[in-house]
This record gives sequence, structure tokens and C-alpha cells, in this order.
Amino acid sequence: MPSSLQFDIVATAGPARRARMHLPHAAVETPVFMPVGTQGTVKGIPQDALDELGVQILLGNTYHLYLRPGVETVRKMGGLHGFMSWERAILTDSGGFQVWSLSGMRQLNEDGVQFRSHLDGSLHSFTPESVMEAEIGLGADIIMAFDECTEYPAERERARQSMELTVRWAQRCKKYFEEHKHEVPWAPGSGLRASYEIENRKSKIENDSVPSIQRPVNDPIADYRLPITDYQSLFGIVQGGMHPDLRKECAQRLVELDLPGYAIGGLSVGEPRHLTREIVESTLEHLPKDKPRYLMGVGTPEEIVAYAGLGVDMMDCVLPTRAARHGLVFTSEGKVNIKNARYAQDEGPLDPNCGCKVCARYSRAYLRHLYATGEILGQVLNSVHNLAYYLDTMRQVRQSIELGEFRNSFPVSGLRI
Amino acid sequence: MPSSLQFDIVATAGPARRARMHLPHAAVETPVFMPVGTQGTVKGIPQDALDELGVQILLGNTYHLYLRPGVETVRKMGGLHGFMSWERAILTDSGGFQVWSLSGMRQLNEDGVQFRSHLDGSLHSFTPESVMEAEIGLGADIIMAFDECTEYPAERERARQSMELTVRWAQRCKKYFEEHKHEVPWAPGSGLRASYEIENRKSKIENDSVPSIQRPVNDPIADYRLPITDYQSLFGIVQGGMHPDLRKECAQRLVELDLPGYAIGGLSVGEPRHLTREIVESTLEHLPKDKPRYLMGVGTPEEIVAYAGLGVDMMDCVLPTRAARHGLVFTSEGKVNIKNARYAQDEGPLDPNCGCKVCARYSRAYLRHLYATGEILGQVLNSVHNLAYYLDTMRQVRQSIELGEFRNSFPVSGLRI
Repeated sequence: MPSSLQFDIVATAGPARRARMHLPHAAVETPVFMPVGTQGTVKGIPQDALDELGVQILLGNTYHLYLRPGVETVRKMGGLHGFMSWERAILTDSGGFQVWSLSGMRQLNEDGVQFRSHLDGSLHSFTPESVMEAEIGLGADIIMAFDECTEYPAERERARQSMELTVRWAQRCKKYFEEHKHEVPWAPGSGLRASYEIENRKSKIENDSVPSIQRPVNDPIADYRLPITDYQSLFGIVQGGMHPDLRKECAQRLVELDLPGYAIGGLSVGEPRHLTREIVESTLEHLPKDKPRYLMGVGTPEEIVAYAGLGVDMMDCVLPTRAARHGLVFTSEGKVNIKNARYAQDEGPLDPNCGCKVCARYSRAYLRHLYATGEILGQVLNSVHNLAYYLDTMRQVRQSIELGEFRNSFPVSGLRI
Repeated sequence: MPSSLQFDIVATAGPARRARMHLPHAAVETPVFMPVGTQGTVKGIPQDALDELGVQILLGNTYHLYLRPGVETVRKMGGLHGFMSWERAILTDSGGFQVWSLSGMRQLNEDGVQFRSHLDGSLHSFTPESVMEAEIGLGADIIMAFDECTEYPAERERARQSMELTVRWAQRCKKYFEEHKHEVPWAPGSGLRASYEIENRKSKIENDSVPSIQRPVNDPIADYRLPITDYQSLFGIVQGGMHPDLRKECAQRLVELDLPGYAIGGLSVGEPRHLTREIVESTLEHLPKDKPRYLMGVGTPEEIVAYAGLGVDMMDCVLPTRAARHGLVFTSEGKVNIKNARYAQDEGPLDPNCGCKVCARYSRAYLRHLYATGEILGQVLNSVHNLAYYLDTMRQVRQSIELGEFRNSFPVSGLRI
């Protein structure tokens, strides 16, 4: 399969890469952090705020969207882009990780996984083919192959069997995808493409919606609208537990499938952080340099910087929004637990070095009050700030790579990961 | 007391009035609907969204703010304006209604009310003087006198005693306020005025922040910034139960105090709607025509139109935001219960005749999904729409009065109130 995704590396700094990834709905500047919109919403943040924050690509969870509202509903609305009114890029995971985390409620065999819904206990099954069908219906720009997330710890033999299953499933995913990729809701000639541009509901996204303070020179937000490819891109997921040789073998066998991009999965499943880093570093060596490399489910602000430094191009994590809802905010001066009584009369912003709308307008005292009184607005504002902090961090990483200053600006060695 | 508040009537249509009310923080175009920001936030709506919606004045609850974060904290931040970073006008109620609704947890005598906090059962007391002290510390543009809300039903003698207590308390409120009004956090020479304009946290409010689509000709959002008066305005509250003669006597005795504005309280406490209307109509006759008249706690979209038609200038209600959080949205085509399964694949906006940001971008299907999955964003977006609907309704009322077309556009007789 010739790669339908265009990935142009514009600068490097050591193993770190600064690239532009052309997708049907947007050109994405990498390294990129992808906010998680599990159920078709980045929790608590309206889409116009995501526009303003400069979010280029967000992640949807196939498992959750399959259960509610159901793939067919989303497909009829022109896919996830139409359903949630989001014009930029989207990636969907395959549900492999979610189904894995159901543990006691699932049964796995060669064909796929039977599982019970966490909502009502109803019985469902995912196979590589059914997941591809779902992800095509959801219509993200990038879709992930259905994999088995190997538990931690796992003995070599168990990890090998699991890894080999993931490879066989990836082959089945590719076969189904190639035969059905034209069924994506926004495919040429599908007739559905315009369905998310309903006359009375035109999106307000504009290219200049990112304030200049947040838009560094040489890092323009995607101004590219016309598709280079009219189909989705299927990424493979490297498994293999904590065994570098199995990771290598998995990577090599997936690379034979000539997919347009590869992810590293099965990490942050309970292993110590130094092991995560070792596996990432050793796996990256075996992934093609000319294709995007995605590290799934990572991480803290320090981690996303460090992994970008190692050559990871894409990352996602629920941490910024989940922490925000629990009153934990990330700042240039460290973490702030906004529920702390010491902030009760603190007139300063969350982060004096942050240019986001929350820091421009509200005091710590006010945000502490909102948290203490259980007001929704507290969750909303903390989430906007944390996401702004993550996205700003990634903008700085991109700028640093362009300037060849990466290691100076971000001393990876000093980060405990 | 010479009125420190300037109230300029610019047009009338029968008893309905179109006026401009000059307050320290804004000129407010009336009739006006005031969104309720109980705990220093209009639930679920960021302040910049309130700016964009064209909110001119919002309401804060003294009872809630007194308990959390406490008056002293708010005062130190420059008052409620500084604390919540809101540059336009604010009105605070007196806590009379909240304390009344605690029923079993309060004891009332001539001096004031002892009550237990609904949060932790701790004992507190409100007197006319202590409430004035609190409202001066909160620093709203308009503050309400401490009153006793008479229960429904109430016999004549009980209603008379209660009304007379409210009058005596109003006298005490006026006395305390006159002696202490210079203590307002933003008073000339207080040194605190600038405290809510902290260098690193400049408000982003701009005069042109209301999109032209939402700003009818002849109804500019307050572009008036310099204060005519540097003090707050104290309004009295007319009580008297459902007895028109007691309402009349209360109104006349409060008018003797020569306050800058008057409210009608003690309604929507369980009485039938036709009685509410009768009391409002008969009470309005006894309030000065050249001063603002505020009907507290009202109401549905139909009611705010109808009462504006009777000559009410100000109204407030939690209904638009509370209903929104429960999935009930108001539209030009009637009420929509967004949780209804019939909207699961409805691609249309909440209201095809609404120009708000929610209707411009999101489908009923998406909003139904957000509600069904318990996502915060559903509450946020429904609240923004409902508030937009209320504010647009009031803009149309103002325009109609200016054009002398009020009864044509809003056939009050057809509204069941």
C-alpha cells in the first residue's frame, strides 16, 4: 500500500524531528500533543475554545463511541467531524486498550474479543474486521489497528503469543481496511461529505483564530484545507511487553505491512518509568524514520518533552483534562493544587508565564473558590489552562527543534522519566 | 437621599418602558434580564461568553457569597467585580429570600434572623446592618435591602406584621448604608479601586465584543465606563403577601424613603400564576414611574416578556441555566427536552431562528449525546443557548418598545401568566 499520508520532516535536532503531517482534514505540525475527546468531546472544553487553543488533532475512543451514540449515528452525521462539529484532524484508537482494561468482563480468542459493556453489561464483540468497520464509520483521519494490549508483568512466552496475535490482527485490519476504505463518510463520491456543513450550522473556525501570542513564527496552525488523500490512514501498534527483542520483532513485522505510521502501545500499564523509557527508545530504532511515530497514552508535561526529544512525533493523554477536573493544574513553576487553602486570597494567575485566556482573566483565589464550591466553571477553566499549557509546551518543543536548540532548552537528562 | 442612580426613559409603549440605567460599572439598557451568578459564576458559563452574549448586569447571592468565600475575601479582591473578573454591572440580593427558604433552620425576631448554614449547620445571623455591611463589601452596583419574605398562604394580620417588619428593616438598611456607603471597595479614595485591574490579569472585555448579529441597532451594549455615581444604589423590596392593600401600603412607606429603585419580592412562592400577575400589576401602580422597578425571581420567557409589557424594568431567574443543566432548552419553536430519543439523529440546531454560538455550530443529535453521556459540555452549551435565548428575547422587547410596536410583537394577552 503506497502511503496516502504525507509526512514532511522540516528539521531535526538529534533524534528529535520537526515535521508536517498532511491529513485529509488538516496539516498537523509535529511533534504534536493530541487532547483526548473520549466521547466526542474534550471534557469540559467547547470546540471553539479548542480552535482558539490551536488544537490541531484530537483523539476519539472507538470503544466509547461504539457504545454511545453508536457508529451508525456518527456515520450518518458525516463521521466524527460532522457529529462533533470539528473541522481539523481526528485520530481514533481501536478500542483494544479499553477492552483490555475491562479485564474480568472480556474473553479473547484468535478471532477477537467478547466483552460486556461497562454501562449495562450487554454483550459485544470486537474483531479486527468489526473494529475497522467502526473506525471507518467514525471517519477519523488516522485510525489504529485492533491490538491486544499485553498485561504487565508478562513472561516472555506469554508476551510473544500476545505480540504475534497483534501482528495477525494487524494483517486482518489492513486487508479489511483496503477493501472498505472507500466507505468513509467523507470519501469522494459518498455524497455524505457535505453533510457536516449544514447551511444553518456553519463552523466558525477561521485560520486566524489562534491569537498571535500563541502562534510562534514558523509554526503556523494548519492553513491547509484541501485533502492530499481522500482516505483514512491506518496505523499499526507495536506490542511485545517489556521485552526489547519482541518489540523489535513486532516492529519489523508491522513495517513489512508498509503502513503509513506506527504507534508504540502497551506502555504505562504499571511498569516503572525507566522501563517505559527503555522500551520506547529501543522500539523507536526499529520504526521507519520517514513515517510518523506515535507513543500512546503519554504523559506528563516533562514526559511529552522528553519523548519528543527521543523522536516521538505524536502523543495523547487524558492527564491535562482529568487532573484539571480534580483541581490539579500544570504551570511553568510546577504543579498547583488549586484546592489548597493557601490560594484563598491569591490574586495572581495560575501561571504568571502563561498567555491563556484563563490566566489572562482569573485569579487563583477565584479558581480556588470555584473548585471549593463544586462549580462546573472551575472544571472548565482548569481544563482550558492545562490544555493550553500542554500545547504551549509542544509549540516550544517544535520551535526549539527548528532552531536546533532542543537539548539546550529542554535538558532531557534532567527529567525523571 | 438624592438618587445617585440615573434612570433615563427613552421610549414607552403603554405601561412598558425602554430606559437606560446608569450605574458605576455600566449603563444598562432596560427592560433587562439579569442572569443569576449565585456563587460568583453564572453556572457553567465563562465570563468571556457572558461578555459575548451581551450580558449587561448579573446577580450575585449575598447568602452564598457570605458563606463562601466570605465577604472579606471578596472585598480584598476589589469586590465581586474584581473577584470574578466581571467589568459590567452587578446586583446583589440581600439573602432575605435564601434565609427564608431555610425554614426549619432559622429563627426570626425584630433584630434580624439567626440561621444555620445549609453547608455545615454552623450558626449565623443576618440583621439589616450586617447585610448592608456584607453587600457593601461585595461591592455590587445595586444592593437590595434586607427583607422578610412572607410565606404563602399568609393571613392578612400575619402578612401585615411581616410587611411592617420589612419596612422597619428597610429604614435600618438605609441608615446603615448612608453611614457606610463610602466603604465600598471601589469607592473614590479607597485605594482598592485598581485592585481588580492587576497588571498580569487585564480583562479582555472590549466594547465591540458583542457580535453585530446579536446587537440590534438602537440597542448598543453599554459603552459607558466612567461612573456618574461612585457609590452603590440601595433598592427597597415591597412585601405584603397576596393582599393588594398591604402591597400598596408597603410601596408607599418605602417610597417615603426615597430610594433609587424598588423591587417586588415575595412572589413565586407557591401562589397561582394569575395571582402573581395581579399583585405585580397592582403594586406597579404605587411605585414611582421615574425609577427602576425590579420583579424578583421571574420567570419563563413568556413571563419576562409579559412583565416587561406591564412596566417592569428588571428581572432575574435561575430558570435558563437550571433548566439547561437538566436538558431543557427554550427555543422560538417551544421547549425542547434534549434528552428525548427523537433527537438522537437530528442534524438541526436547537433553534433554527437563534444566532447563538451553540446553534451556529452544534446539532441536536450532538447535544443529546452529550446529555446522555453526562458530559459537562452538554450543560455548558445548553446554558449558553438558553441564556442567549433570554437575552435575545429581551433585546426584541426593547426594540419593540422603541418602535412603539410592543403589543403587536408580543401579544401579552395570549400568554398564560
